[in-house]
Amino acid sequence: MLFSPGPVAVEEEVLRAQDKPLIHHRSEEMTALYGWLCEWFCNRLSFEECYILASSGTGALECAAANLAHRSLVLSNGVFGRKLHAIAQLFSRSVEFVEIEEGKGLCLERVEDVLVQSKADTLFMVHNETSVGVLNDAEGICARAKELGMLTIVDSISGWPGAARPKSADVFITSSQKALGVPPGLGIIMLSSEAVKRYEAQQSKSYYFDLKRFKDFYKKSKQPPSTPAVTLLYALKTALERLEAVGLERYYEMHAKAGAKARAFLSSHALGLVAEKGFESPTLSAFFYPSPQKLIGAMRTKGYFLVPAKGKYAAQAVRIGHAGFRQLERLDEMLEALGGVL
Amino acid sequence: MLFSPGPVAVEEEVLRAQDKPLIHHRSEEMTALYGWLCEWFCNRLSFEECYILASSGTGALECAAANLAHRSLVLSNGVFGRKLHAIAQLFSRSVEFVEIEEGKGLCLERVEDVLVQSKADTLFMVHNETSVGVLNDAEGICARAKELGMLTIVDSISGWPGAARPKSADVFITSSQKALGVPPGLGIIMLSSEAVKRYEAQQSKSYYFDLKRFKDFYKKSKQPPSTPAVTLLYALKTALERLEAVGLERYYEMHAKAGAKARAFLSSHALGLVAEKGFESPTLSAFFYPSPQKLIGAMRTKGYFLVPAKGKYAAQAVRIGHAGFRQLERLDEMLEALGGVL
Repeated sequence: MLFSPGPVAVEEEVLRAQDKPLIHHRSEEMTALYGWLCEWFCNRLSFEECYILASSGTGALECAAANLAHRSLVLSNGVFGRKLHAIAQLFSRSVEFVEIEEGKGLCLERVEDVLVQSKADTLFMVHNETSVGVLNDAEGICARAKELGMLTIVDSISGWPGAARPKSADVFITSSQKALGVPPGLGIIMLSSEAVKRYEAQQSKSYYFDLKRFKDFYKKSKQPPSTPAVTLLYALKTALERLEAVGLERYYEMHAKAGAKARAFLSSHALGLVAEKGFESPTLSAFFYPSPQKLIGAMRTKGYFLVPAKGKYAAQAVRIGHAGFRQLERLDEMLEALGGVL
Repeated sequence: MLFSPGPVAVEEEVLRAQDKPLIHHRSEEMTALYGWLCEWFCNRLSFEECYILASSGTGALECAAANLAHRSLVLSNGVFGRKLHAIAQLFSRSVEFVEIEEGKGLCLERVEDVLVQSKADTLFMVHNETSVGVLNDAEGICARAKELGMLTIVDSISGWPGAARPKSADVFITSSQKALGVPPGLGIIMLSSEAVKRYEAQQSKSYYFDLKRFKDFYKKSKQPPSTPAVTLLYALKTALERLEAVGLERYYEMHAKAGAKARAFLSSHALGLVAEKGFESPTLSAFFYPSPQKLIGAMRTKGYFLVPAKGKYAAQAVRIGHAGFRQLERLDEMLEALGGVL
């Protein structure tokens, strides 16, 4: 069973939701399904618009950059921050890039000067740095960036709904295969009214990800411009209904508790976390271990799939995921097995 | 049941293949799966490289244009030709656009002068114009374009594997949800050695669709650069195994026969085809009908989902799909029902 930060293991019920006969992308059934999904995100997370893309999370990041980037500032503390930088470079007029040490958390006091001195009008940052399990203080940073007149774009691919939405994110991006507990293949982009104004005034550098096309089709029919990944939309709907039954606040708490449990376990085995204190991720934990591949191999023989850290600590740390209903449910069991092979 | 040109109705076995537990995108299992799929396309269709994208077919067209377009010539005879034009415009240094009447077929004698006089180094054309069911003579045109030094990019989203691959296509694009009989969400791009040389020498205008990133990851591990749509890859593998058991040549014939059967039926009811004689599509038929929505409504009450034509004839013609195992299998039954409501 996958205990990676993502794709996460998916519940049977969600997998089986993919089996329903296909509906057409230009049908009333699609209007009902796609409309329900997009509105769910808008209503529950207070965004003006939301579009669900047939792409991985990286595609949704490209969508944001191709439609919204201008003079960009990218803050980074790891592999996924650097990926945001690469994407922003391709679509921005100018890019400033500031990186802090991997494992450390991004917070306002560390980047305040950068924000104040920046000439950027667009901020890019990662909410939850998946490579080493660090939850950045995206809200603290975005709130200040907005005061300074920037549009804030937050990559929460491995964060939400394991962590709450930073209120000051103008553009909020996630994907299906992490804490949502859905198979991979859907990127989700949510936009504030400021973000909508920006993309309406700019020419998209992508056709496939052109938000004006998404808006035109949505206004007309609540359908997407290109054929969506219909069976994955079915799975997403089932997952959101389960999430709705539990409640978002409670779901955030479940992840916070799972993170605390994983860290208590690691600490009891004297295994150090890569993440700085105060910035521990609720959806995954990366811990130092002398020979990651040996531990990962031992866990595979027990049926659990873990992965090494990414970036600077790739050869020194192991990551475990605790995101989505199924991983949360079976976390104790996995930790027990881990205890047995350490 | 869907009898649209695509998404087509998908067989139970292919739908259920999506239910298998997820594997990780950086695992040996993914290497085996993704490698098998890409090699299948390369080997069976004689291409140098193939990549399977988490996107709709439109995403795969964007991939081609963002990596390969330069001085482009776009030939069109309908809605999807114009879409190619829109995509080419975004990524080309210059674009020439030539359109013939909708319903008419593109063939060498009609565009020879255009090819000879063109300053383009890249040709874009649609193989099977889905909007009105016209199969263009892509091979005749591409062979000549190659003689003239152009790289040939062919959109076969609704064509292959209902129609054979044009041998002179350097870049050949299809998607999962048409004649392959797989749910939507996968774009497939196949490349000749000339196409590989071109993208290696050019800078990609997309990060998500950057073919150099696909190649780097594939060379290293036969894995894609971003998380793929894993459950759709499962479905694709099952569909290709079924296709393999039947044989590609036989599968093309099955579609040719289904097309002939549909046309014979329409002709016996004195319903005129939109497609010019000699250019009839093997995967769908568009026929004139005084009130398309009325007929479509009547068929829906019988459980069959048809769609109107797109473009110039949207208000005057109806389309029926005959692509993929399931539609082929149930074509007689659908035509009988259609006969009952005409």
